[in-house]
Amino acid sequence: MKSPIGTFELIAKNEKARRGRFHTHHGSFETPTFMAVGTKATVKGMTPQDLENCGTQVVLGNTYHLHLRPGEKLIQKLGGLHKFMNWKKPILTDSGGFQVFSLAGLRQITEEGVQFKSHLDGTAHFISPEKSMEIQMDLGSDIVMAFDECLSYPATNEQIQNSMDRTHRWLVRSHQAMTRTQALLFGIVQGGLNLEFRKYSLSQVTSVDLPGYALGGFSVGEPIELMHHLLPDLVPLMPQNKPRYLMGVGTPLDLILAIDSGIDMFDCVIPTRVARNGTIYTWSGKVSIKRAEYKEDPGPLDPECDCATCTNYSKAYLRHLFLSGEMLGSQLNTYHNLYFYMQLMKRARSHIEKGTWREFKEFCLTRFAGIDFTGKK
Amino acid sequence: MKSPIGTFELIAKNEKARRGRFHTHHGSFETPTFMAVGTKATVKGMTPQDLENCGTQVVLGNTYHLHLRPGEKLIQKLGGLHKFMNWKKPILTDSGGFQVFSLAGLRQITEEGVQFKSHLDGTAHFISPEKSMEIQMDLGSDIVMAFDECLSYPATNEQIQNSMDRTHRWLVRSHQAMTRTQALLFGIVQGGLNLEFRKYSLSQVTSVDLPGYALGGFSVGEPIELMHHLLPDLVPLMPQNKPRYLMGVGTPLDLILAIDSGIDMFDCVIPTRVARNGTIYTWSGKVSIKRAEYKEDPGPLDPECDCATCTNYSKAYLRHLFLSGEMLGSQLNTYHNLYFYMQLMKRARSHIEKGTWREFKEFCLTRFAGIDFTGKK
Repeated sequence: MKSPIGTFELIAKNEKARRGRFHTHHGSFETPTFMAVGTKATVKGMTPQDLENCGTQVVLGNTYHLHLRPGEKLIQKLGGLHKFMNWKKPILTDSGGFQVFSLAGLRQITEEGVQFKSHLDGTAHFISPEKSMEIQMDLGSDIVMAFDECLSYPATNEQIQNSMDRTHRWLVRSHQAMTRTQALLFGIVQGGLNLEFRKYSLSQVTSVDLPGYALGGFSVGEPIELMHHLLPDLVPLMPQNKPRYLMGVGTPLDLILAIDSGIDMFDCVIPTRVARNGTIYTWSGKVSIKRAEYKEDPGPLDPECDCATCTNYSKAYLRHLFLSGEMLGSQLNTYHNLYFYMQLMKRARSHIEKGTWREFKEFCLTRFAGIDFTGKK
Repeated sequence: MKSPIGTFELIAKNEKARRGRFHTHHGSFETPTFMAVGTKATVKGMTPQDLENCGTQVVLGNTYHLHLRPGEKLIQKLGGLHKFMNWKKPILTDSGGFQVFSLAGLRQITEEGVQFKSHLDGTAHFISPEKSMEIQMDLGSDIVMAFDECLSYPATNEQIQNSMDRTHRWLVRSHQAMTRTQALLFGIVQGGLNLEFRKYSLSQVTSVDLPGYALGGFSVGEPIELMHHLLPDLVPLMPQNKPRYLMGVGTPLDLILAIDSGIDMFDCVIPTRVARNGTIYTWSGKVSIKRAEYKEDPGPLDPECDCATCTNYSKAYLRHLFLSGEMLGSQLNTYHNLYFYMQLMKRARSHIEKGTWREFKEFCLTRFAGIDFTGKK
């Protein structure tokens, strides 16, 4: 029997770490999961087949970018974002809020919404909770994010309080604006780096019954340690029976620590963006393909990786492609980094299921941060 | 029984057009064939798997570029160009001559060879026939091109005469410098746009018994009509039992006309380079993906094409990728254009074999140049 869309199955729990499955109109996905960022209806340099091959379950699209170009009405007319970009599995779209607050020019925020100028051509635009929902539903997203106010870091307590209250009012309006039953709305918890604020926001956001909840407002310039200090106390307070999504985070180490606090879903531009700059994630840490010592290195990026890049190409070749500015270098590096992230999630799921999460976490901390756990054994 | 390398089988002939098969150390390929240009050990934006999928049989590498970066000794150390770029089928390399004469700075030509400065960093380099052969053999090329002098257009008769004579002396030296039996040397006929000069050069070049012969010195700035005026008389004078390679040519129309004169092999940057600029070859002619009328067009680039790009993506999506400067746009356009060129060759081979070459040629001339043949039927 097929689970109804919006259902989250909690398959296993190991300490705070969770292994689950979420059902959407375009199929289910296994959690913890990392969503590849496909800003402008493409994950840069990857075909949908590449994405599937490297284990991608969900692609994230950016409402702000797609609204400005090519426009959601055009995408809707062409059958929706899935068909437009030829991706048949689940799609999550953000609300546009984050980009409006970080990219757009000349913002004017009112209770009604945000007036801003396009970073592309300076044209005036307006996004409200209702408009954001309309855009995301036109795109045909499986998971729609509530329109929230994103404060930059640092912010005063008064700013945070006002922003949380507005975000809550906007959530209620977002919820009321939902018209497609296939689209699943996630609410976003704000509140900066203060646990009490976060709890307050959480209680506001969870007062609306939604299929999932996200933590927003991290990865906005604060020292990442502050987030990790907060997550172990905050995440367990989020509803048990709903997926928990940590927005815009992060490095492999960030992901492991966040899963350890009970997070189920991630998205981040890191693996794809740094790949284009020649930075590679491996099971032995992060390396730059530019390094002179790789000049004649016949070995793969990561001897522990079995991806198509590591199976077929040497570090010497990838270094050559990078130094020559060849597109294929970006493609092969991106493929590897995404595969690495997807494998990290796959192994996390398997260890949580087997009850060996702690061992895997310690293995990752040793590998990625050089932390020695041998003394305690 | 496997044919020895360097053997050319003439499978069929229809008027002057030829259908053949050439055997190399990395397997055979069917002619007429178009070789994809992989200048710096990569066909821009294409994985070797992509190249195979779109029907590529031979990849061309550029000696000048690979000599400067990463260097042939490094590639040799890593197992040769095939292994370096993970391409298992035949590779042809040019001699470096064309780039030395077109790209490099401060050239000094002597009987010994050419002294020049790298276009990358201004460092001094020297290439002679012997050096070019050494580089190409270090790369592990299946087909090695003789080191020739490339005149720019226009040139005086005296310049052409001197250049042909030097090219011939350099061919003899190139031939003597060959040390690997797996490497097959092709000689290059020069002589500008004058049939008598071309005949003279042809007799010089064919005085050395080689597995294949090429026509160089076209596509160097002359009106292309002049080449097409010459080919019907020149090409049939080339040896019947050897492959005939027209270097650096051309558009789909150029290929059809050259096959009609008896050419077997081509290479050109056109399909890949223009793809990155949004120009698409179709069975109805050339189009630009930028066109405003494609904004909401749900149809494929070419309704008569069954490539992965045309099967999976709309013109509207490809236009969006192009306008957004997305890498995937270049990849998908390149894939389509190469597939189109390979299909053109495949259909040419099939029609020559069936004895319907003339019908296919007229079909192509009608489609690509709007020429009406109906009156004569």
